[in-house]
Amino acid sequence: MKNFNDSLSEIGNKLLASESIYLFPHVNMDGDTLGSAVAICKALRNAGKECWVLIEDDVVLYLKFLDKGYCTYDQDKIKNPDICMCIDCADIDRFIKRKEKFLRGKTTMCIDHHFTSLHFADYNYIDPTAGATGEIIYDLLCEMNLSIDQEMGEALFAAITTDTGNFQYSNTTRKTHIVVGNLYDIGIDANKVSVEIYENVRLEKLLIKCKGISTMQVFADGKAAIAFVTQNMLSEIGATIDETEGIGEMLRSISGIEISAFLKEENSTTIKVGMRAKTYGNVAKICEKFGGGGHIKAAGCTINDTMEAATRLIMEEIENQLND
Amino acid sequence: MKNFNDSLSEIGNKLLASESIYLFPHVNMDGDTLGSAVAICKALRNAGKECWVLIEDDVVLYLKFLDKGYCTYDQDKIKNPDICMCIDCADIDRFIKRKEKFLRGKTTMCIDHHFTSLHFADYNYIDPTAGATGEIIYDLLCEMNLSIDQEMGEALFAAITTDTGNFQYSNTTRKTHIVVGNLYDIGIDANKVSVEIYENVRLEKLLIKCKGISTMQVFADGKAAIAFVTQNMLSEIGATIDETEGIGEMLRSISGIEISAFLKEENSTTIKVGMRAKTYGNVAKICEKFGGGGHIKAAGCTINDTMEAATRLIMEEIENQLND
Repeated sequence: MKNFNDSLSEIGNKLLASESIYLFPHVNMDGDTLGSAVAICKALRNAGKECWVLIEDDVVLYLKFLDKGYCTYDQDKIKNPDICMCIDCADIDRFIKRKEKFLRGKTTMCIDHHFTSLHFADYNYIDPTAGATGEIIYDLLCEMNLSIDQEMGEALFAAITTDTGNFQYSNTTRKTHIVVGNLYDIGIDANKVSVEIYENVRLEKLLIKCKGISTMQVFADGKAAIAFVTQNMLSEIGATIDETEGIGEMLRSISGIEISAFLKEENSTTIKVGMRAKTYGNVAKICEKFGGGGHIKAAGCTINDTMEAATRLIMEEIENQLND
Repeated sequence: MKNFNDSLSEIGNKLLASESIYLFPHVNMDGDTLGSAVAICKALRNAGKECWVLIEDDVVLYLKFLDKGYCTYDQDKIKNPDICMCIDCADIDRFIKRKEKFLRGKTTMCIDHHFTSLHFADYNYIDPTAGATGEIIYDLLCEMNLSIDQEMGEALFAAITTDTGNFQYSNTTRKTHIVVGNLYDIGIDANKVSVEIYENVRLEKLLIKCKGISTMQVFADGKAAIAFVTQNMLSEIGATIDETEGIGEMLRSISGIEISAFLKEENSTTIKVGMRAKTYGNVAKICEKFGGGGHIKAAGCTINDTMEAATRLIMEEIENQLND
């Protein structure tokens, strides 16, 4: 384990000298981990390498367009890989079911942009200033002099646009836009990618979001909003608990709302709470009171009580902070 | 009236030689028209000019942060303006209540990016390849050697990000990203702008959207979706008919849906229909059958009948096209 960065040129040279490479996206794949992996997978195959993206969970609906024969669940597709490289993984638990295989790579590598990244591989390149790991993969491919075609460019666009919240999050930089400008030069159809990603919402997801919103209460003089989803509501609609993602952000997006709380019923006595703040609120502080934590503007906790009781407790604590 | 473009340098020189300028954003102001106007207004004031953004409608909630003393309703603020310049207006009806004042400018100018723009001013610069008028204003300010500060940069970012659908619409180009990359160099806080614009949703708007979605019917083997909003629903919630904007796009975003239709009750016998297609559908063709029209992927029509009858008619025509 190292505490410093290897250079992209060292990493690129090692990749070019190898014959077989397994790429490891993190579990619960998002656009950045999979888009980045697919782009470099195709580039390495074009360079004559045996290369696969080794996965442990299914590719979600909105990312299926990325996998044109790159992903495999088969840990024996490559028996003794020269290189095992993980992508967008801050620690080794992000690919826990594939960890043994990763460590059996003759050389291990990690390319990531999380500032908490642990430098657990033989070669590590961690750039927390990158908006997305896709930006680093773009630089790596340029460093290796591997040409980026439209398909790779679109995979990198998918990586970058999803991880930067369509260029709206504060991790977006000048560099982000410059890289994407260069991808346009390659001839990417960004709008096509965008339709694949954003116009591929499960009906049940849209319905559970609206159902959740319908439970909303606004309180603390219009400065806070709270809403919930129960197991009954989920099963009525046929939605999964993951599909409630985004409700907290929708609540926060209301004019005047500083703090939002969204409560998910895991079971009749376990309530998962996600909280968001807009500008001056500190939801980590509130969640810590319930044994949880997180960031100032995004935090969470678990309350072992009924939905009704949890709602009351959370509303009280939010009022306390906002009236301080 | 001219049918060709004047150059940005001619326009810039004329502006620099003038003393007083009225800027005309279009009615129903959006981020592009107002962000562009505010940016150039401040630049011209910094250059010693008397300059105002002359408006006829209120600045909407999510754009209020842009107006730090630039906008006025007062048509006599400048009695005899040297230059009247409209921004993001494809024709003169886009500022109909201010048209007389516009035409009384000693020189009139139009900066726009709509391909239908009519070249109705003395000086016209129309670039339909620009993702937003904000991109052109950026070039114009550079051409004029006027420095762009953080506030102007953020106004231009607001213009560009809103008009390109956060860089997802097909009007986004390499140039769009290069301009925004340059705005980052100036030190804009894009995320702050984004919070102002997107986390400033009227509560009633969120509620009417969910109410509309709750009326959804999926038909044509899961390839089409239809929903509606009535005057009763609007008044129950206290939402305006404009706040139903975006429901058609939400319906289209569902996986498998090719065509969406959203019906708004103007009154008991007038139904406004907005239709959207995702990839291969042609909604202009359907809307033409009802005397309407538009683009292949976004069109509209009006049906003078009850909501029930209009819904039936529209569903039939969508089924016809999808079964063809």
